[in-house]
Amino acid sequence: MKKHNIILQPSGRRGQADEHTSVRSAARELGVEIESICAENATCGKCMVLVEEGRFEKYNIDSKRENLSPVSNEEAAYFARRPKLLKDKNWEVGQVRLSCQAKICGDVLINVPEESRGNKQIVRKSASNRAIEVKPSGAEYLVSMTPPTLERPIADWERLAKGLETSMALVRGTEEKLPRWYEFEIDYVCLRTLAKTLREAKWNVTVTVREDKEVIAVQAGYHEESYGAAVDIGSTTVALYLCNLRTGEVLASESEMNPQIVYGEDVMSRIQYAIDQPDGLEKLHKAIISTLNKLLKQAAKSANMSLRASAKQSVHNEGIASGKEQERPRNDISLEDIHEMVLVGNSTMHHVLLNLHPKDLGLAPFVPTIHKSVDIKARELGLHINPSGNIHILPTIASFVGADTSAMIVAEEPHKQDENWLLIDIGTNAELVLGNRKRLVCTSTPTGPALEGAHVEYGMRAAPGAMERVHIDEVTLEPKYKVIGVDGWNTDHAEFIGHVKGICGSAIIDAVAELFRAGIVDSRGKFKKELSTTRVRQGESGWEYVIAWKEETSIGRDIPITQQDVRQIQLAKAALFTAARTLLKRSNLESPDKIILAGGFGSFIDKEKAMLIGLIPDCELINVYAVGNAAGDGARIALLNIEKRNEIDTVTRKVERFELPTDPEFQNQFMLATSFPHMSEPFPHIAHLIPNRKADPMAKKFMK
Amino acid sequence: MKKHNIILQPSGRRGQADEHTSVRSAARELGVEIESICAENATCGKCMVLVEEGRFEKYNIDSKRENLSPVSNEEAAYFARRPKLLKDKNWEVGQVRLSCQAKICGDVLINVPEESRGNKQIVRKSASNRAIEVKPSGAEYLVSMTPPTLERPIADWERLAKGLETSMALVRGTEEKLPRWYEFEIDYVCLRTLAKTLREAKWNVTVTVREDKEVIAVQAGYHEESYGAAVDIGSTTVALYLCNLRTGEVLASESEMNPQIVYGEDVMSRIQYAIDQPDGLEKLHKAIISTLNKLLKQAAKSANMSLRASAKQSVHNEGIASGKEQERPRNDISLEDIHEMVLVGNSTMHHVLLNLHPKDLGLAPFVPTIHKSVDIKARELGLHINPSGNIHILPTIASFVGADTSAMIVAEEPHKQDENWLLIDIGTNAELVLGNRKRLVCTSTPTGPALEGAHVEYGMRAAPGAMERVHIDEVTLEPKYKVIGVDGWNTDHAEFIGHVKGICGSAIIDAVAELFRAGIVDSRGKFKKELSTTRVRQGESGWEYVIAWKEETSIGRDIPITQQDVRQIQLAKAALFTAARTLLKRSNLESPDKIILAGGFGSFIDKEKAMLIGLIPDCELINVYAVGNAAGDGARIALLNIEKRNEIDTVTRKVERFELPTDPEFQNQFMLATSFPHMSEPFPHIAHLIPNRKADPMAKKFMK
Repeated sequence: MKKHNIILQPSGRRGQADEHTSVRSAARELGVEIESICAENATCGKCMVLVEEGRFEKYNIDSKRENLSPVSNEEAAYFARRPKLLKDKNWEVGQVRLSCQAKICGDVLINVPEESRGNKQIVRKSASNRAIEVKPSGAEYLVSMTPPTLERPIADWERLAKGLETSMALVRGTEEKLPRWYEFEIDYVCLRTLAKTLREAKWNVTVTVREDKEVIAVQAGYHEESYGAAVDIGSTTVALYLCNLRTGEVLASESEMNPQIVYGEDVMSRIQYAIDQPDGLEKLHKAIISTLNKLLKQAAKSANMSLRASAKQSVHNEGIASGKEQERPRNDISLEDIHEMVLVGNSTMHHVLLNLHPKDLGLAPFVPTIHKSVDIKARELGLHINPSGNIHILPTIASFVGADTSAMIVAEEPHKQDENWLLIDIGTNAELVLGNRKRLVCTSTPTGPALEGAHVEYGMRAAPGAMERVHIDEVTLEPKYKVIGVDGWNTDHAEFIGHVKGICGSAIIDAVAELFRAGIVDSRGKFKKELSTTRVRQGESGWEYVIAWKEETSIGRDIPITQQDVRQIQLAKAALFTAARTLLKRSNLESPDKIILAGGFGSFIDKEKAMLIGLIPDCELINVYAVGNAAGDGARIALLNIEKRNEIDTVTRKVERFELPTDPEFQNQFMLATSFPHMSEPFPHIAHLIPNRKADPMAKKFMK
Repeated sequence: MKKHNIILQPSGRRGQADEHTSVRSAARELGVEIESICAENATCGKCMVLVEEGRFEKYNIDSKRENLSPVSNEEAAYFARRPKLLKDKNWEVGQVRLSCQAKICGDVLINVPEESRGNKQIVRKSASNRAIEVKPSGAEYLVSMTPPTLERPIADWERLAKGLETSMALVRGTEEKLPRWYEFEIDYVCLRTLAKTLREAKWNVTVTVREDKEVIAVQAGYHEESYGAAVDIGSTTVALYLCNLRTGEVLASESEMNPQIVYGEDVMSRIQYAIDQPDGLEKLHKAIISTLNKLLKQAAKSANMSLRASAKQSVHNEGIASGKEQERPRNDISLEDIHEMVLVGNSTMHHVLLNLHPKDLGLAPFVPTIHKSVDIKARELGLHINPSGNIHILPTIASFVGADTSAMIVAEEPHKQDENWLLIDIGTNAELVLGNRKRLVCTSTPTGPALEGAHVEYGMRAAPGAMERVHIDEVTLEPKYKVIGVDGWNTDHAEFIGHVKGICGSAIIDAVAELFRAGIVDSRGKFKKELSTTRVRQGESGWEYVIAWKEETSIGRDIPITQQDVRQIQLAKAALFTAARTLLKRSNLESPDKIILAGGFGSFIDKEKAMLIGLIPDCELINVYAVGNAAGDGARIALLNIEKRNEIDTVTRKVERFELPTDPEFQNQFMLATSFPHMSEPFPHIAHLIPNRKADPMAKKFMK
């Protein structure tokens, strides 16, 4: 057999291919996947490549069009239907080829354009801005069957399975032994409509196969897209991302308040509700399922609106539209087209979603029903996507380290690092994961609602009118602040007057840190009473510091930070800090190499202030990252890449769990951690912020 | 390591075992399975064995009690609780041992009593009276867990799975690498009650594992029994067998009319109903599901009644009861305890059961939706056994060769024979399978309702008052007959007068055969008119032969066999005979080595008469077997033995299907086959019955 050189760009992969091998097959041999969905019938056009012409000294080859087989009739027909595409891209037929058709007859240098590449990547924001490969659990295959006759009346499923084997073999075409057709399975609900679909489709269908094995959808005609939804069920907010499973693109993001909030604000009160009320679990479960169904509907609607808008624009604006989009009108995405969902949430949200009673999560020894990831048919949970579609729920790790933490690990990948990373998801409960590729440890701790602005005298959620930043001058002890919805500091212009409503979580951290830094409260959190400012005063419920006088507010009252507020923050930060300290100690570490703050709250707080009050351990500020909704990102990654699901199953099984309350030193350490840290050794990175203060003996004791 | 000889009776297996190996482990090494369900904790007593004492020259060993480890405290305690058992069996402790406890310290000859043997066998009636090994799809394991603590709050499922791994390893203990605990799965519905069950059970549960992989039931405490139901859905009758999945015993047999009969008497009219009515399929489907649920309930009730009756008797009658039954009161069987069902039926019944539209089965080219066997959760079909239980439906083979034929194959095993067997299931439709271990061919043919007594002038179902046998004297042309419910022939005594109501299927075959044998009708089925008997006469609808005068009947009218009746039988037998002939020809066979008649009808007809009219091909009469409900037997076999399911899947895939209507010779052959065969070569086995008749030229032509 004669062999020729083939070089693939932009990957730079090169090697030799037998004469008459198709470019697509040759590329695959060299590890370069090129898309195809039409079983190499020259109809989908997904596998387009470009032949680069000329002498390539580096590879010692002359690449020319003639070194590929002549353009076939099918290929010519394909391109003839797409004059606009050729014009827009400035391509000529012969230069551009369908790689399933073009056979190698001489040396060639082939350019694989982005849109034809098999394993697409999406780049996401994370501590490392890494790219995610799209490897969905399912794949679409076009199957064309010979209709049954009296001579060959083989059953519909067997006819489809045999055809599918052919299509899969062509599309995959690996050397490995393929699963034989009778090893395929078909979901029962999908089977029920099979006969009708095949006949209506005149025996040409697109088949969605899950994990190379189970047929979960059969659609008449040619369909290249498949959709999925990733969901993060927070105690407060439910966020859903509708994604294209082939490209990885997010088509719509929708969120809603968690409707369970009416049955209890935090997870413990919801567990109590499920224990106290005979139909408590049923109500909580139905509430979340109906919200998920609502979000799915909204997301499909939003996605369709924007897809229609862009299709319309592409018709009007010839310069932007690609030929293909114009020629094949896009169908609206229906809920049936959503073939998969991945969900995450804390252990309680996880249990309620699965209709598992959370009772034992709420009573000692706090045991979940299951850690392992769960796969379940959409119809079993009553989720209104394709009823044959799969619902995947990420594993829980410990009693209070849930599937959201698993998702955070998937997103941030501490298990692939040499450095030691500390991941913290801060909310009413905080989950912490510390470690690297060798070892991961985790724990969780309740932090109370103070960090989210609740149970604080003038606390409020982050919304217009909420203070979001506070600064206190060390000398005059006068404050300045920023308010959500208004630019700049309140001292900059008069617009602020009459605007302030309350204090949100990030401003509370700021305020407490500033009170400490400015010497208004001591390291134990007590107000000093001898200060020369009218802002520090004896209020209704004890000592307080007024940040905004009533004239500045929309509520007609002074807005102070009270002794009680400071105390709340002290308890929250002590819990978080003790948890982090325990993990570090168990890992024999002084401090982490990186701190990653996940969750909405982590994105808004001032890292420096958080470290100043000791909310997070000491670390170089440049190595403290806020990554936003890492749990949502992790859910999306697990949705788009099935290998990540196995990875997280394996990783979470190995994570070591520490239950703080069983740590003999916990109570003692916790009490010590309520004091504020300062310029002693363990906090070198914030020492410059508080230059004039003496070391606090208690803080020293704690650090040992 | 010191080794000792061990001989196991009654199998005669022998070999060597390491010192201190348990007798059970050593037996397993030698391929002798001994039961155990308590994870070798000396509590279930399933593994009892007997030490035979003495010198065994054949094996050159001295076997004695002292060659096993002393009776352990646990063992002694087990036997101390069962004085009656020891007394009844005349066993002494030390002679009888728990094989999981007794360790080998010297040469021994061990007797494994029937009840301790691992793979039980049940003997069933079939053409070969073969024994069926009981190898159910699931197995029970006792799992005892340490309760969770604050220090070790691992989730319930993981705790159970780890415990299960231990129990399974002990029970199985093969050298192969066992699946690790995290490869186990748990059914979703079972998961939902897991937390509650484990706590109520104080962490001691019996776990039912399906196919060594999926947990489908978790019950508090110790349960050794598991139940299953096998069902044959006939167009007319639905028969259900409730079985003990461990012993294979049938605990109850229940049957009901198929409720779909109100929507159409035969399958074609039911298919038409489903096509014509918008909710036709839904009605048919719901009707069968609700009948199945009714049968399940009845079967559980019957089984409980007889179990209670026998338990009561065993208390009263010490001589009969075994010690164990008295000591452990049997719990009632609930529907939840039924863990599996296997169902069979013709293609239409199969489709309606699965809620698959039968439309394309009824319209050319007559295509089923699926051939492959189907596994589906009980809850998906709405069958009221354990909702996590599996429903297995055997494969269909061709358009009109359904899962009932698959079951017949499982029951009769033509695919394991050297001889060529012809299996015929006779009903309104007849299915035929011919062949041996090398090749199986099948076909089906409609036979019309005549063979079941319908559409015959005075036809009726086999019920009291129906003629079941007819004989006609060759000389006098006078008949005699037998009636269901009365002993002897009508000519024997006067009791018959006023009893006869009609003619059932078997008597119609008899009557037509006798009319032909006595020369009243010719080989083309025409009445001869010149005969000297008043019984042959011109009736209302043509010529007829009166079998019973009106005085003999309960209906006050003469009961004749009419020309029309003879014609009906001719058409039915021609269809059946042509089908059989076609299969023989395609297999290059003159005649089969054995004919197996399945179905109720096959059990009642006179084999000789059936051959005389050419309903079945020529064969030695001794090699024609009626095996009763082979489909029901096959369902039961597939229920009890999971390997049989794989076997039938493999076998049915290879069966060659012939569609008669597409056979170019079919019409011609069919017309020829309407004539009655006689003493020409192809029917040597019935030639003696009709010695005085000449060869019919048409019959000769047909046989070529």
